[in-house]
Amino acid sequence: MSEKKYRITFEPDGKSVFVRAGTTIYEATGEAGIIIKAECGGAGVCGSCKVRVVSGEYEESGSEAHLTKEEIENKTVLACRTKISSDMTVEIPLQSRLFEQKILTEGIEKPLKLSPNVRKQYVKVGEPSLEDQRSDLDRILDALENDGKRIPVDVLRRVPEKLRKGDFGTTVVLNRDEIIGIETGDKTDRNYGVAFDIGTTTVVGYLLDLNTGKQLAVSSMTNPQTSYGDDVISRIQYTIENRDGLDDLNERIVACVNDIIVDLADQAGIEKKYIYEVTATGNTTMTHLFFRLNPKYLALHPYVGVVRDSVEVRARELGVSINNYGKVVSMPNIAGFVGGDTVAVILASEIYKKKKLSFALDIGTNGELVLGNRNRLIACSTAAGPAFEGARINYGMRARDGAVEKVLIDEDGVEIGTIGNGLAIGLCGTGLIDAVAELLKAGVITANGRLLKGEDLPPDVPEFLRTRVIDHEKYGASFILVPGNESKTGDNILLTQKDVREMQLAKGAIFAGYQLLKSTLGVEDEDIDEILLAGAFGNYIRREQAMRVGLLPQVPKEKIKFIGNAAGAGARMVLLARELREETSRISENTEYIELAINADFQKVFADSMFFPEG
Amino acid sequence: MSEKKYRITFEPDGKSVFVRAGTTIYEATGEAGIIIKAECGGAGVCGSCKVRVVSGEYEESGSEAHLTKEEIENKTVLACRTKISSDMTVEIPLQSRLFEQKILTEGIEKPLKLSPNVRKQYVKVGEPSLEDQRSDLDRILDALENDGKRIPVDVLRRVPEKLRKGDFGTTVVLNRDEIIGIETGDKTDRNYGVAFDIGTTTVVGYLLDLNTGKQLAVSSMTNPQTSYGDDVISRIQYTIENRDGLDDLNERIVACVNDIIVDLADQAGIEKKYIYEVTATGNTTMTHLFFRLNPKYLALHPYVGVVRDSVEVRARELGVSINNYGKVVSMPNIAGFVGGDTVAVILASEIYKKKKLSFALDIGTNGELVLGNRNRLIACSTAAGPAFEGARINYGMRARDGAVEKVLIDEDGVEIGTIGNGLAIGLCGTGLIDAVAELLKAGVITANGRLLKGEDLPPDVPEFLRTRVIDHEKYGASFILVPGNESKTGDNILLTQKDVREMQLAKGAIFAGYQLLKSTLGVEDEDIDEILLAGAFGNYIRREQAMRVGLLPQVPKEKIKFIGNAAGAGARMVLLARELREETSRISENTEYIELAINADFQKVFADSMFFPEG
Repeated sequence: MSEKKYRITFEPDGKSVFVRAGTTIYEATGEAGIIIKAECGGAGVCGSCKVRVVSGEYEESGSEAHLTKEEIENKTVLACRTKISSDMTVEIPLQSRLFEQKILTEGIEKPLKLSPNVRKQYVKVGEPSLEDQRSDLDRILDALENDGKRIPVDVLRRVPEKLRKGDFGTTVVLNRDEIIGIETGDKTDRNYGVAFDIGTTTVVGYLLDLNTGKQLAVSSMTNPQTSYGDDVISRIQYTIENRDGLDDLNERIVACVNDIIVDLADQAGIEKKYIYEVTATGNTTMTHLFFRLNPKYLALHPYVGVVRDSVEVRARELGVSINNYGKVVSMPNIAGFVGGDTVAVILASEIYKKKKLSFALDIGTNGELVLGNRNRLIACSTAAGPAFEGARINYGMRARDGAVEKVLIDEDGVEIGTIGNGLAIGLCGTGLIDAVAELLKAGVITANGRLLKGEDLPPDVPEFLRTRVIDHEKYGASFILVPGNESKTGDNILLTQKDVREMQLAKGAIFAGYQLLKSTLGVEDEDIDEILLAGAFGNYIRREQAMRVGLLPQVPKEKIKFIGNAAGAGARMVLLARELREETSRISENTEYIELAINADFQKVFADSMFFPEG
Repeated sequence: MSEKKYRITFEPDGKSVFVRAGTTIYEATGEAGIIIKAECGGAGVCGSCKVRVVSGEYEESGSEAHLTKEEIENKTVLACRTKISSDMTVEIPLQSRLFEQKILTEGIEKPLKLSPNVRKQYVKVGEPSLEDQRSDLDRILDALENDGKRIPVDVLRRVPEKLRKGDFGTTVVLNRDEIIGIETGDKTDRNYGVAFDIGTTTVVGYLLDLNTGKQLAVSSMTNPQTSYGDDVISRIQYTIENRDGLDDLNERIVACVNDIIVDLADQAGIEKKYIYEVTATGNTTMTHLFFRLNPKYLALHPYVGVVRDSVEVRARELGVSINNYGKVVSMPNIAGFVGGDTVAVILASEIYKKKKLSFALDIGTNGELVLGNRNRLIACSTAAGPAFEGARINYGMRARDGAVEKVLIDEDGVEIGTIGNGLAIGLCGTGLIDAVAELLKAGVITANGRLLKGEDLPPDVPEFLRTRVIDHEKYGASFILVPGNESKTGDNILLTQKDVREMQLAKGAIFAGYQLLKSTLGVEDEDIDEILLAGAFGNYIRREQAMRVGLLPQVPKEKIKFIGNAAGAGARMVLLARELREETSRISENTEYIELAINADFQKVFADSMFFPEG
């Protein structure tokens, strides 16, 4: 976290994030949780991500072709083509915003009825006198609205001095009916909370002002548990095989959460001691590891967790550095691997309230799937693995500068787009989908996933593609996406037969889950009114390509909507509105689930789902 | 606690206590909370404390005169004349029991409706299967009677292993709606609690079986805070004047409580980890110091404490060594110095329910006074000081072997009784009262407290008394209670003018409190239906002598009743019956109080009360 960072503020939202030098404005919008149009996925080709620079230094290249003279004069640029090289303020015009993201706007930005769990109240109490010998605490309790308040003894111990330091004017911090703080004088203006989305691969924290509901900062980091295994099963395995394994993984995630909290507080210029609550959503394994609950039996047949409902604990007990008396609360799980992140997606997308039939899909290292409406909801969690995050792919990488994230094959040849538009280094998730989709169209990859080479290639495959298919001594049949003389590494960047198989496993797992949800609910593709794509990766997918590879069902494109980081949005919502906690408990209890690992049909459906759709 | 101790078991009660070699059976009954007749206060003269030795070795002297031949044959002895020199079993016949102690018998021994706060329930839950994938916690919660149970995360963490170790049979420990323990297998038979009476000078712990209500052991120790000052004000002063003063005093009392818990567990042969709750009563200062609440403002005008109502905290947080998830809960205070011990006395004596007008008096280092009935109760706390515990008296000592505890002056001379009947070492509280009462009768002490000497002595004072009044070079006028050649120390044991003044202060403080309670309630001595004497000292007072010195008002002797350690009884009651906690809160709220330190009339009434009644 020590690298040079710049603050970029988005208007009229007022949101700020800190990003490294060289980050594009487009990437920064993602970190700030603002979703803008980028049909080409930030490749600089669609020209839809126009923003206006209000102040600050930047490096821009390739915007002009998409801009009018007037736009150039008022410092409009393409967000994806503009790198940040100082603190900046950027205005995002309405026409560049992606208004399909109704959930984020309706659910979060248009504020909820603000009713945070943590409230602060300033009270000025009478000073003790011969006529008024009430105890210090009684005089505070009598000044509060309702009876029945509790106070932990360690807060109680500080009452006498706090009260007298502020001349008997004091700020009471209430978490529901518990007095979690007594502060000298009027400090009611400082009341913050942090919502965390603890992903298997990425952890995101959102700092919120609990008095206004306003989001003050966003910060994200790679989950440091990744070095213990890139999927949930390998992490659980680590806790089983190593005596201190659970402690190790717990310490890592707590340290990460603390780093993010420091960053958030720095960004917003607030003190950590005024953060009174942390809400955390994540899959069942992440929740177990964060709360140091043994996940062992989650990985063993018949796959049961320690706890389903929400867990609440003092932050200090968990080692989370916020106010000494602050709390950390988890989103409830549903069952087995169907975790709090799914509950958060259901909450934020509001599909549990809707009449129309929705299919919500949050693709991370796991794929969380929910199908249904207000009458009945069914969820499952698929072990898609981190292929879409670039892992397990021979030339795979995370979605950052130099990643091939767009592939276009037409009669003129193979066109490649990289994030940042520089020389290619590797292949990220969207690039993987594109490459497979384009090679399927071209006939280089068959419906059953074979990457054809030499004589096996159909006769209509043009020569410029044939020459790109090689028989790699190690990887076997491979397609040269970027020749070595055009790559940054100097090596060929390949899509290998194994990569296609990984992709089949990943998309097959998700699609099989979808099939089982459908058959359980007794509906068909055409009954589905909307497909909601959540999560960072989901929001960069090109919908036609996702349908082409069979990651998504064949539906009219407009039915597929992007809803941003819905899990994070859910965590923010429960931080701001305490009555939603009961809502999440109800969602947790009422959502049915399919445990794929023990579903008798899963293996067959999974095998079928690994096929690519016929052309 | 390492000295050689013997177990003495009382039948038919079944109570056991451990006592040092040489302790009398009479003293042991006190430690066991059994009250027997001892009109002479254990001096071996009244012959009322007859008990029968069932088994064990002992040293007896001086019983025979009071016993029939038959009694001697069946090993009947006087409890006060018999010292323990091995493990013993002793039967206390009905006729030796003091049945005026109605509170103890009615309130505690005839069990309350047993409803302890802590309950244990064994549940055998279904094992996880493909058909039953509930989380570990859900399967426990579903097996319990009611919904809405909470579980702290550190208990939750142990659920998976505990559950599987016991083949899914587990004992759930519930503190109201909180699950404070999950134990392997069926451990419902082990459920204990300890009630503490934390006195300024003496700390007593009672170990109770929460399943049966039975008292398993009693243990007491001198409050080690005594070395920081013998009254509450000097202890508070210590916390004000020393940076770590509060921590010092808190550590001392917690260590003492822990020593007593070890002793109780040893006596009863149980494991400390099955003690789940501690209730503690004490005066306001003792409660503040035990819970590490700053008592500073209690000692400063206008005398307010940190908290009035009951405080509850995890034992571990306080350093109290019971079950890791056990709790410590205090009796609520009333206000200022009128503390939880007063509430406990009110609860145990049931004067808040009675129609008749009662005056309850608990004499310790402070005197706690309550006057009233079910319509109106008024309490006050008087700083009597530790004179009755032998402190601040020139030749004073605690009530133990060698203490002069009885003084009789008649025409034949001065007769002295000591505890243990050996040579005198010093003077304890009852001896002090006796000495002053007898010298008042003889005219050696005047109604205003002057100890007369030489020519000032009235002419009718016999010669054998005149020669005992000396003009001590240091103490001035002094009465030789025991000449040096008859004392164990070889020195004269004196009652000095200063001792008489200390006694006047102590009894004056108590009597002044009583006067103010009476005038506030608008009643006279003759309106009072009963005087209830509580506390260890109270139970050894000779009633006529207490009236003679003006410690108690002049009432028919039979109105004065001994109620044993009512504060301790109150603490035991709330441990066994949780609904009594609300009762104590109501008592705390509804009892009026007089803060003597700020009462305009107190100084005058106090000055008047220091006089002794005219002969």
